[in-house]
Amino acid sequence: MRTPPNARTSRSRALYEEIRARIGDGTFAPGMALPSTRALAAERSLSRATVTLVYEQLAADGFIETRSGASSRVASGAMAAGPAASPRSSPDQGAVVSQPAGRLSAIGRRVAAFGPRDVRPTVPGEIDFIYGPLSGADFPILVWSKAMRQAERQRVQRLEYDDPRGNLLLRRALHAHLSQTRGLVCSLEQILIVNGSQQALDLCARLLLDPGDRVVVENPGYLAAHQAFAAYGASLACIDVDEHGLKTDQLAALGPAQMAFVTPTHQFPLGSFLSLARRRALLAWANETGAWVVEDDYDSEYRFSVGPEETLQSLDRSERVIHVGTFSKTLSPRLRLGYMVLPPGLVDAFATAKRLSDRHSASGVQRALAVLLEDGSYARHVRRIRRLQLARQRALTQALTLYLGDGVDIQGAASGLHVVVWCRSLPSTAEGALAEAARDLGVRVHPIGPLFHPGSGGPGRPRPAGLVMGYALLDEVQIREGVQRLSVALRQVQAGLAPGQAPGS
Amino acid sequence: MRTPPNARTSRSRALYEEIRARIGDGTFAPGMALPSTRALAAERSLSRATVTLVYEQLAADGFIETRSGASSRVASGAMAAGPAASPRSSPDQGAVVSQPAGRLSAIGRRVAAFGPRDVRPTVPGEIDFIYGPLSGADFPILVWSKAMRQAERQRVQRLEYDDPRGNLLLRRALHAHLSQTRGLVCSLEQILIVNGSQQALDLCARLLLDPGDRVVVENPGYLAAHQAFAAYGASLACIDVDEHGLKTDQLAALGPAQMAFVTPTHQFPLGSFLSLARRRALLAWANETGAWVVEDDYDSEYRFSVGPEETLQSLDRSERVIHVGTFSKTLSPRLRLGYMVLPPGLVDAFATAKRLSDRHSASGVQRALAVLLEDGSYARHVRRIRRLQLARQRALTQALTLYLGDGVDIQGAASGLHVVVWCRSLPSTAEGALAEAARDLGVRVHPIGPLFHPGSGGPGRPRPAGLVMGYALLDEVQIREGVQRLSVALRQVQAGLAPGQAPGS
Repeated sequence: MRTPPNARTSRSRALYEEIRARIGDGTFAPGMALPSTRALAAERSLSRATVTLVYEQLAADGFIETRSGASSRVASGAMAAGPAASPRSSPDQGAVVSQPAGRLSAIGRRVAAFGPRDVRPTVPGEIDFIYGPLSGADFPILVWSKAMRQAERQRVQRLEYDDPRGNLLLRRALHAHLSQTRGLVCSLEQILIVNGSQQALDLCARLLLDPGDRVVVENPGYLAAHQAFAAYGASLACIDVDEHGLKTDQLAALGPAQMAFVTPTHQFPLGSFLSLARRRALLAWANETGAWVVEDDYDSEYRFSVGPEETLQSLDRSERVIHVGTFSKTLSPRLRLGYMVLPPGLVDAFATAKRLSDRHSASGVQRALAVLLEDGSYARHVRRIRRLQLARQRALTQALTLYLGDGVDIQGAASGLHVVVWCRSLPSTAEGALAEAARDLGVRVHPIGPLFHPGSGGPGRPRPAGLVMGYALLDEVQIREGVQRLSVALRQVQAGLAPGQAPGS
Repeated sequence: MRTPPNARTSRSRALYEEIRARIGDGTFAPGMALPSTRALAAERSLSRATVTLVYEQLAADGFIETRSGASSRVASGAMAAGPAASPRSSPDQGAVVSQPAGRLSAIGRRVAAFGPRDVRPTVPGEIDFIYGPLSGADFPILVWSKAMRQAERQRVQRLEYDDPRGNLLLRRALHAHLSQTRGLVCSLEQILIVNGSQQALDLCARLLLDPGDRVVVENPGYLAAHQAFAAYGASLACIDVDEHGLKTDQLAALGPAQMAFVTPTHQFPLGSFLSLARRRALLAWANETGAWVVEDDYDSEYRFSVGPEETLQSLDRSERVIHVGTFSKTLSPRLRLGYMVLPPGLVDAFATAKRLSDRHSASGVQRALAVLLEDGSYARHVRRIRRLQLARQRALTQALTLYLGDGVDIQGAASGLHVVVWCRSLPSTAEGALAEAARDLGVRVHPIGPLFHPGSGGPGRPRPAGLVMGYALLDEVQIREGVQRLSVALRQVQAGLAPGQAPGS
């Protein structure tokens, strides 16, 4: 087997893992034809040789079948066979890691097929426009430490398992907070404390989705949610997103679904705000088809120029909406604290599932957060960090205008911690080349391509190259410097100067 | 509908919930005959009228079918029907709580059938021989606070999701600790940090068990594990336990199984230490049948008079053993910190499942625990608390000998935080009456009956009344006072004096 050159390894491996995951989650069903190596190479800015190599490895691992002259197809046994569905080799990994000694469950085989998370080591000095992480400097360390100590002083006689629904003090404080800041209409009993929004999504998948059930998701959308659903065997029905959010007019043609997953306050990644008319249409569709609606309110604290809204939860009249929120975007993703607001009829099942999953969320951080919410310091922190993030966002949009001018369109700046930047003069197929050229200049940018459902953001539907640009990690000087370097990279790629990046190299 | 008298409500409700759960988890399969009201009333020390009332309510809720003159049977649609499988009424609850607006998944229906946890309010001044909670006074608050502050000072630039396998510092410290204290032979990569052992069991169930798969469990055994397995549709195969642990000679007759769940260091609840011969037999059986073995090492820190042992993990030569441990028994159940030592072939799948479940365990407590393990203060704490718990256990066994003398047998005192006390002169059917009589005297004791698989601890196999007596929450004065009062309660019940407790009342 030919070993691809070093510069290509991480990208060919990522492609291998992505296709393996799509086969694992059923998106690429057995028998389905894969894109041609030529089309896929163009879509991903890879050489055809690299894609061919990935296909050969997938065939060797039993995932796909290749016939000369015909399209490669997903192997008929790719999902069903136990060990074959979780191979331990990949194109860049000569050694075969040990196979499990016994059988995995159907869920286990799907999860194994996703593969471990791509680890991207941070490079010192690199300016990283990543979305997700927060800056350690923004964490309210003094206030938090004080709250932790205050929580520790609340000594109890019996150290026993806490309520699976969450600490009562936290739920009380959160109930008041959500009613005040989000206009949610719910009782205390409807609130369930979870380990970040990811656990909320996992519980929704487990308790609401049977294998084969259809879940409506946004395209482009939030991959970690899609994987959580696919792990339980759900099939994903992708609906397009425009500047008003999910295109609800596409729902009618879909047929029945068991769930819809949406980010109405700030669509991830495009940043749209779901219009009131579409919110109503979505709820009407859910009522007709009997679907649950999961509303992920992941960064609603950062609404800069969006007026008051009605959440799906507050519009819902038939107890179909599950509202999910997190403290990962205001405090830290490492605290693992989030919440669900459940319809009354789901409370007992979710509380029992939480108990069987891990008894309850870690108690100390729950009590500390209750203190922060109670004494007003959380609200003060949010006001402070919102100003900070808005200043960073302004620095980013101003720098983009200054250095890239008419060359780019900026989308989704009304709220949140990222914007989408469309490079008008560059096709989507050049996203990878742009990211590599920027990296050579010490800047990390993140193409939007992987957030599109495979095929839907490809050559069939031409679009400009797009980047998801987060700014929460950077100061204003870094932001300006990073954009300036990005403008150089963009010009290099436009001029076809990015070394080794021409298709077919 | 007749309302049962107040004194009976909690017990009749518990019986209703238990049967509902057993139907939910498939233990009571559709069409299966239930015990007669007479037999069940005798087994549980309830009046026949109470059991009849519970059966009537189960029939009204669609779970069972009653015919005059014939046995009551599990209704044929009890598991399949969505809403019918998660009714919101129970005998003591006139109002019907709201039904879910849509369909639950098969897992969701099973989980809903377990019902919410029984909440037992603590009575001030009551002496509670409960097993599970630790005393708040034993928590090393100063050392822990110092470690938390030290962890907080380790400020990072990027607050991003941590490794799903757990914080690297903690895994390193734990790797050294487990190799030293438990003789585990594993690489750092095999360790996965989870939210207490319950999450380990949930992940095992999710990734290894398909609906209908058989899981070998101990009888009597640990119900929260059994529920976690049953939630994913597994069927439980109960194997008896004696003074040498699981009776492995019963395995051969079972046929194939996908998993065995055992507590070899200190069987829960009987306290047996699984003999080396049986450890080998269990592993040989697992190799022959292709089963996974989950070794729950939940309280191995409290070995008082057990010699060095070989864990199943260290005996395993074919990568079938999943070792599970927790910090809930030495620090606090509220920290939600536990770990798994996985066979190499399962590491990637479990790490990915952990990522999709909740990204990773809360970061602060992980880093604080790493500090405690590193600087030796965890080892010091364990030495201190082990002495404390041993002194309590001695106070308990001495008091039992003093006040109850030849009337009781004490089992499982070689390690752990509880013993089983068998009351020779009292049949198992009187456990409930004994607990009620003790409660009237300000003492809470916990019958062993509910930890037996339904039917297996009943009239068909006579045994003396047994209590699972924990002592971690009590001081030596309370222990002696509690046992003295228990002796009074025991004499009352023996004399048939417990008011209103005679069968058929």
